[in-house]
Amino acid sequence: MSAGRSSSRPTSKGKGSRRPKPSPFEELVGQVLAFRDRRDWRQFHSPKDLAISISLEAAELLECFQWKNPDEVAALVTDPERHREVSWEMGDVLILLISLADILGTDLVKAAFEKLQENERKYPVERARGSARKYREL
Amino acid sequence: MSAGRSSSRPTSKGKGSRRPKPSPFEELVGQVLAFRDRRDWRQFHSPKDLAISISLEAAELLECFQWKNPDEVAALVTDPERHREVSWEMGDVLILLISLADILGTDLVKAAFEKLQENERKYPVERARGSARKYREL
Amino acid sequence: MSAGRSSSRPTSKGKGSRRPKPSPFEELVGQVLAFRDRRDWRQFHSPKDLAISISLEAAELLECFQWKNPDEVAALVTDPERHREVSWEMGDVLILLISLADILGTDLVKAAFEKLQENERKYPVERARGSARKYREL
Amino acid sequence: MSAGRSSSRPTSKGKGSRRPKPSPFEELVGQVLAFRDRRDWRQFHSPKDLAISISLEAAELLECFQWKNPDEVAALVTDPERHREVSWEMGDVLILLISLADILGTDLVKAAFEKLQENERKYPVERARGSARKYREL
Repeated sequence: MSAGRSSSRPTSKGKGSRRPKPSPFEELVGQVLAFRDRRDWRQFHSPKDLAISISLEAAELLECFQWKNPDEVAALVTDPERHREVSWEMGDVLILLISLADILGTDLVKAAFEKLQENERKYPVERARGSARKYREL
Repeated sequence: MSAGRSSSRPTSKGKGSRRPKPSPFEELVGQVLAFRDRRDWRQFHSPKDLAISISLEAAELLECFQWKNPDEVAALVTDPERHREVSWEMGDVLILLISLADILGTDLVKAAFEKLQENERKYPVERARGSARKYREL
Repeated sequence: MSAGRSSSRPTSKGKGSRRPKPSPFEELVGQVLAFRDRRDWRQFHSPKDLAISISLEAAELLECFQWKNPDEVAALVTDPERHREVSWEMGDVLILLISLADILGTDLVKAAFEKLQENERKYPVERARGSARKYREL
Repeated sequence: MSAGRSSSRPTSKGKGSRRPKPSPFEELVGQVLAFRDRRDWRQFHSPKDLAISISLEAAELLECFQWKNPDEVAALVTDPERHREVSWEMGDVLILLISLADILGTDLVKAAFEKLQENERKYPVERARGSARKYREL
């Protein structure tokens, strides 16, 4: 039902306990879903269309770096306007990830923790250290 | 320096106060960067290559839905193994977003908040309600 | 009905004339569609799913270059096995383009000619020469 | 050196033979490379940047179908302006494939023939018929 909440929603601890302030990420999740629901957009949020949209936003993020050599990429980072543009494209990807997680009933942060653990297995430190090879080639 | 940290709760400054427990998202950021640094992978993390990788992981996520009709998508969601597969692909995208945010000095959660605000402007509730049109066509 | 056919050389109409041998590209179009039809796959070829698949194959092509610096890319080109791998990924994109063109009734080669003409307009030689800028920034 | 040429450039057959008229695809290859060279753009055409660009153009093609249900996709195909838009996006992908093939010394049409042959092996008619499953699941 809700993205990124079960890993973060603290349980009350009996009488007198106060609900802790939500973390910024939890607030973001809430605002993303409220944004969607105020526009009645849940009806369009099929998992497949959301996955398409994540892919398209990732392409817009990549477009910021198209045809750019390392010097131009470095310049992009120090220019405040371009830095903001890149950051907002990243924000778009995150907003859509949160939307898909909600539809699928996925705890996004928990899924990333699990994947990181899986990556620990696939890329053992002693073999992966300093190498950009894929795990199949390690 | 750090992704998604500046938006986190400020540490209390009073005598005897303790630093609040990091939120799950903050913990994730810390673990993603530690994973990278234990492998000495920061050297490979150029912004352009990270943006490429985000795009490739988004494609792997989309691949879960390739050739699937709505019934098959629904079945995918209720099958625990497939659900986990999709969730982990989403986790991969988030892990790479966090990695890019760190390299660029972007506060990822803050960027998403800002983009959401921009989207509020581009998609006013009264005009966007119940419509899947792009803002240029609203 | 058929991709890339209407742009092909017209058949001579004179007495005794023979139909000219199809070009390699025309033969490819014929084989791609025959491959599909022998497997009864046209039923799966919705335009949207084909567009998704083109995007996924383009990602597999891009994956060949992920994390690679210019020296490694150059080495990739001179290694026969890797060169073939990249070439086949390009072949996959072309096969799917031909499949989508057939479903949409698009003459693929003609569409590329038209787009090239449009690009001539967007990127006038005198201004675009030696510049990697997008047309909006020219 | 040249894209799509070796499979199509006919060898002269001795005295008196005439060079046959190039096929539309061969003409397209020639025009795409001439377009590039008139703008002195070969310098920007690293294989990695071209692969990025193919991926981005594939995303623009996919964007034509974003949020669209089957009825809306069908309407898109019958609307001449939208049909042209989709066709031109396909043309863009083909133009960039031709550009990458030239830089890599790949015969694009031949590569697609080879990949089709490989697909014949991976998807035998008797098992693949009427099934949208991936070859690993056949």
